[in-house]
Order: sequence, then structure tokens, then C-alpha cells
Amino acid sequence: MENTPPDHSLSVGVSFGDCDPAGIVFYPNFFRWFDRCFHHFLAARAGGHAELCARLGALGVGLMDVQAQFRAPVRENCTLTLDLRVREWRGRALRLGYEGHVGDTLCVTGEEVRGLFVMREGRMAAGEMAPLRAALGL
Amino acid sequence: MENTPPDHSLSVGVSFGDCDPAGIVFYPNFFRWFDRCFHHFLAARAGGHAELCARLGALGVGLMDVQAQFRAPVRENCTLTLDLRVREWRGRALRLGYEGHVGDTLCVTGEEVRGLFVMREGRMAAGEMAPLRAALGL
Amino acid sequence: MENTPPDHSLSVGVSFGDCDPAGIVFYPNFFRWFDRCFHHFLAARAGGHAELCARLGALGVGLMDVQAQFRAPVRENCTLTLDLRVREWRGRALRLGYEGHVGDTLCVTGEEVRGLFVMREGRMAAGEMAPLRAALGL
Amino acid sequence: MENTPPDHSLSVGVSFGDCDPAGIVFYPNFFRWFDRCFHHFLAARAGGHAELCARLGALGVGLMDVQAQFRAPVRENCTLTLDLRVREWRGRALRLGYEGHVGDTLCVTGEEVRGLFVMREGRMAAGEMAPLRAALGL
Repeated sequence: MENTPPDHSLSVGVSFGDCDPAGIVFYPNFFRWFDRCFHHFLAARAGGHAELCARLGALGVGLMDVQAQFRAPVRENCTLTLDLRVREWRGRALRLGYEGHVGDTLCVTGEEVRGLFVMREGRMAAGEMAPLRAALGL
Repeated sequence: MENTPPDHSLSVGVSFGDCDPAGIVFYPNFFRWFDRCFHHFLAARAGGHAELCARLGALGVGLMDVQAQFRAPVRENCTLTLDLRVREWRGRALRLGYEGHVGDTLCVTGEEVRGLFVMREGRMAAGEMAPLRAALGL
Repeated sequence: MENTPPDHSLSVGVSFGDCDPAGIVFYPNFFRWFDRCFHHFLAARAGGHAELCARLGALGVGLMDVQAQFRAPVRENCTLTLDLRVREWRGRALRLGYEGHVGDTLCVTGEEVRGLFVMREGRMAAGEMAPLRAALGL
Repeated sequence: MENTPPDHSLSVGVSFGDCDPAGIVFYPNFFRWFDRCFHHFLAARAGGHAELCARLGALGVGLMDVQAQFRAPVRENCTLTLDLRVREWRGRALRLGYEGHVGDTLCVTGEEVRGLFVMREGRMAAGEMAPLRAALGL
């Protein structure tokens, strides 16, 4: 568990339909929640993804690389508290860390590497991160 | 819009990933939220679906029939307020009404008919509703 | 079960992650599959939703009303065969029927009412169906 | 792209509802497809997850660690061909590699580390891999 305060936090109520026949969260849902937390962070800092993309002339702040470690099972009716930390600004990529707790138990950790996708010569390409960083005031 | 107070309400934060290439909520997600609202209601009144099923010797409080009307588009970063109303207790079925608003706008209405599924002679069948009604104190 | 031949059919392989803690398909997934079947139908007849919308100046062929009846549980590793039938062309709406079988067992039936959404005076509205009907050759 | 033949392959039809407002696949869906491919592999080799768990006295063959790299955008109406390769059997973990192509384009790569979850002294723990390996005939 990290000691620096998170850049953003989001509470997720885990529901029956998020779980699989083994009775625990179907793992792709953790990525839906990472993504949800990131978009919540964009909404809090810069009016949301759509507004941000319009301002920056981008198609999206999309995924290049992602990983997660599942440390303890999460079940229906739990509240998962997700913490997001901006870990690194690279020239054309942003690295984000996630931690998810249920109570005091660390259940999931993960990392997303995102790019600012723009159209260049008819295809999607990763643009410079500096305008996104400025828009987020970070 | 109905005038009786709802039996349960749930706020849903609509995120980027809940929306489709047309930029509005992908419609099956409204049913995920109906189901989420119903399970939240069970948790508030009877300790949740798993505990309730254990107590009643049931497999689940599952769907027999469902419908929805989509009245106004819902987009990312909206907060959808879902109201659930118990509309009718039948012998072997429970009818539930849903209304979802974004601000003052009624965006979705719907209805679920649910049964209490039990195993009988090796197959899933709809059991009596009375024990569920008693467990919910309704 | 209906006797007229379907206008389109789609096989869906039901997987572990489509099922809930009761071990049967989480019901909103049936609507994902109705929608998938409809888009597959559009792809087969008119090059797909995106191309069709571009041609017709529309935002989408979206939902106005939907319903389903769940007749028998569907489990992981089943193959669900979905049949779509065009039931009625109205002025500003298209009514579609669905039937889903696993083997000989009718498991789900349903109906979608869809509109052709266009922008009119700054808001989404239901456009005329005739151009869609012509594009689909129906 | 790897040169050894895959241990299993699965074709996934990408549909409208799998995509987000940027018009490309919402990234958590790739993990739903990794999981689907793995369960398809279990069904082909050992009668499926439920039967396998019953035979091995396990709760599930669940995730411990996962990662993916998104190399090219995938859009609606594409067919994604997923290849699964068993990369390594450890004492209490199985490492699986995934590659997803649309036509000749490598769009996604990834890796899952899975354990065989069993109940031990009232909590979920990772069991020995040898019985799973034997059941799969690998």
C-alpha cells in the first residue's frame, strides 16, 4: 500500500451482477472500475473526457498497457474504495497506479499506461502529453 | 412519473464505458442498473441476496419478465437516480416498477417480474412469494 | 415459437463470465445479445451500423422500448441460437422480435422497438423509417 | 507474434455494444474475451470449468495477475482471432499468453496468471497445479 495521498478516489458498490458463478467479482470488472475512476478524475479536474478531447483535438485518452494483481476476492455488497495515483508523465504516455481496498484489505492493485490519441495522416496515433497535463493542472 | 414514494432509490454515476459509439448509454446497462437497484434494496431490507437465499432455501430471486421504455438519452458523467417501487405481490411472482431520472428529466421507465427460484424434482421452478415478502417485511 | 423463417440468426456461445452467482446467465446479457444480433443483421444487409448511419445522416438505430421473457435458464457452455424477425414497420419505429433456443428449448423471447435517431433543432429525435427500410431492402 | 502453434483459438465477433464513445473496443472487454477463450479451452479439453471444479474439488480457476498491451484499435464488425498459449506451469500457478489479431494486424497481447482456488481453513487459497495439468492432459 502506498503512502502518498491519492490523486483521486472513487467508491464502487459491488453488486450481484458484477460477480461470476464462483461468487466473486468477474475480473474484467476491475478494469471497468479503473476506467471509471480515471474518467471520474477527469470530470473532477477538467470537465470530463468529452470536453477535454474537444479542447485538445483528441479522440480519447486511451489505453496502451494495463496490468492488475488480484490479492483478495471481492464479493457482492462489498464497497471497493479505489485510489488513483498519477505515477509518471512521459512524453507520449501517462502512467497511473490503482489500489482497491475493501475495508482494510488490499484486494486489487494495478497500473494503466494511457496515451492521448489523435488522428495523424488518417490513423490513430499517440500525441504529446504536455497539453493534457496542463489541462489537468498537474 | 409516479406519485407514491419509492420503496428504494439508488444513484448511478454514468461513466464513459457505459456508453456506446453513439455517445449514449448502451441500453442493456439500464437493466444492469435495475438489477443493481433491486439487489441494493434486498441488502437494505434483508442482508442481501446471498443471505436471503440461504434463509429461504432458494437459488435466486430471478427474472421472469422485464421491459423498459427509453424516454431521453443518458450520457457519460450524468447521475441517474433510480426509484424502485414494489407494484404487486402475486402467488409466485413479484412485480417491480422502475423510474430513472437525470435531474428533472424522466429518462427510463421499466418493470421487472421476478420469481423466487427453488430446485424442485431436479429442475429450477418458481416458489411461493410469501416467505420472501415476510423476509422483506412488506 | 414462430413459424415464419427468421430474417436473421446468430449463434452466441455462453461463457462463464456471462453468468452470475446463481450460475445462470445474468439477464442484461440477453439484451446485449439481442443488440448484437440486430447489428449483425445490419452488417449482413447494409454494411453495418456505422456505414448505414453515415448514409442516412443518423446518429443511431436506437432503442425506444424493449421487453423480454425468460422461459428457461441458460448456463455456461450452452450455445444460444437467436432468431430475429422484423415484425412491423411503423412511420417512425421498427418492431423486432427475438427468440433464443438452446437445442430445442425456447429459453428467451423478446421484442425491441427501435427508432432512427437524428439531430433536429439541437436535440435527438426519431426520424422517418422509410430510408432505413429501403437501405435494408425490406 | 509467436511462432509456436496456439493451444487454443477463439474467434470473437466485435459488436457495436463492445465499443465506447471513441468508437473502439472498450478495453475491459478484451479481458472478457481472454477469459472466454480460456473457458472455451477448458470446455474443449476437460468438459468445462464447472465439471473440472467438481472433479478437482475447487472453487474456480481464477486470476492472480493479468496484463495486456493494446497495439492497434479494434472496431465494431471486426473479427478478432484470439490465440491462447500455455506458457508455464508453476507449483501453484499457470501462466497463459494471449494474442489477438484482426486479419494480419496484431491488435492485443496479454498474459494471465491463474490459480486453482480451493477452500482451506475457511478461506480461499491457491492449490497445487498438478491435478489441473493432469485433467487437461498437458
